[in-house]
Amino acid sequence: MHYQKLLRIPTTGKSLYNITPKIEAIVAESSVEIGLCTLFLRHTSASLLIQENADPDVLLDLANFMAKIVPESAKYIHDAEGPDDMPAHIRTALTHTSEHIPINRGHLVLGTWQGIYIWEHRQRSHTRELVVHISG
Amino acid sequence: MHYQKLLRIPTTGKSLYNITPKIEAIVAESSVEIGLCTLFLRHTSASLLIQENADPDVLLDLANFMAKIVPESAKYIHDAEGPDDMPAHIRTALTHTSEHIPINRGHLVLGTWQGIYIWEHRQRSHTRELVVHISG
Amino acid sequence: MHYQKLLRIPTTGKSLYNITPKIEAIVAESSVEIGLCTLFLRHTSASLLIQENADPDVLLDLANFMAKIVPESAKYIHDAEGPDDMPAHIRTALTHTSEHIPINRGHLVLGTWQGIYIWEHRQRSHTRELVVHISG
Repeated sequence: MHYQKLLRIPTTGKSLYNITPKIEAIVAESSVEIGLCTLFLRHTSASLLIQENADPDVLLDLANFMAKIVPESAKYIHDAEGPDDMPAHIRTALTHTSEHIPINRGHLVLGTWQGIYIWEHRQRSHTRELVVHISG
Repeated sequence: MHYQKLLRIPTTGKSLYNITPKIEAIVAESSVEIGLCTLFLRHTSASLLIQENADPDVLLDLANFMAKIVPESAKYIHDAEGPDDMPAHIRTALTHTSEHIPINRGHLVLGTWQGIYIWEHRQRSHTRELVVHISG
Repeated sequence: MHYQKLLRIPTTGKSLYNITPKIEAIVAESSVEIGLCTLFLRHTSASLLIQENADPDVLLDLANFMAKIVPESAKYIHDAEGPDDMPAHIRTALTHTSEHIPINRGHLVLGTWQGIYIWEHRQRSHTRELVVHISG
């Protein structure tokens, strides 16, 4: 069985947005008991990440690390879309365009400390399209 | 339904090679309407990436970033296969050995600006083996 | 057909642990001839990686690279769990929480030089939970 849904997720600036409850809801809707949930982000300047859901400081440190390793102040050839565009592409390349979580007994098998995030790398507001694909 | 195909893709030096049309053709061949396409590269010195397909400068900036962050001039213990071999392994680790794109109405659900690339990290010519797996 | 198994894997300090034989055994057990094997690690301070299985120096160079690019000596906001905790989260973000290998004729289609690793980023001993999901 293959079940697919498109989500439109508004973002308002560079940040990690926790989408775990949205994905859990779609898994419940699918009625799949054992299977695989694949998330696919239709963009190249925002990415997906599974990371710590407890201490928000972890997300701050992640963002600070990315800001340091892929600086917006560096010189890029592709600079017509603003200083945060090329760094957004690189930060996306270093993280993930898709994430995958098995389903067991109708629930994602996420660990206790794992949350699913969209990592928005652009400063201006966007609507990001996420395809949720469930096979079971 | 599971459909699988092995592609042999020639590369001629460090670069990002757009394989999107090749993958679209295999999806069409599979006749899958709704499903998931998984790409798996059978190598550890080349990788897969979904990235911007419009401005080629984005690919240049990506390559420049990798050259800076994983320099070939650094000292590596594993150096018997040439100065570009160990950096190739690290650049592969920082990107992806597999990529995944859901299929809807018989087509990959790629965003407008997304292309699928093999990122060759070695300078000499290679033939890279890519397994395309479609479930639907 | 969907087949799922939970493995508990002990780790004893920062290192890359080769789990390829364990995964091959589960693929055999599943009797799947053509399909897809997904590995999902239920943690945010250890990760998965497919890398060179021949020269162990490659793994040393990978670890040295990570130690340099994500230093434990840097200042992190999230520092209550020890100097190796926040670097472990970042190193996980830069590598993978899931890996995926197609199955053909009952075997993983890994390349000759590819091994599957759990990359433990914490120094103290842990038991890591890995979900192996096979569809075929």
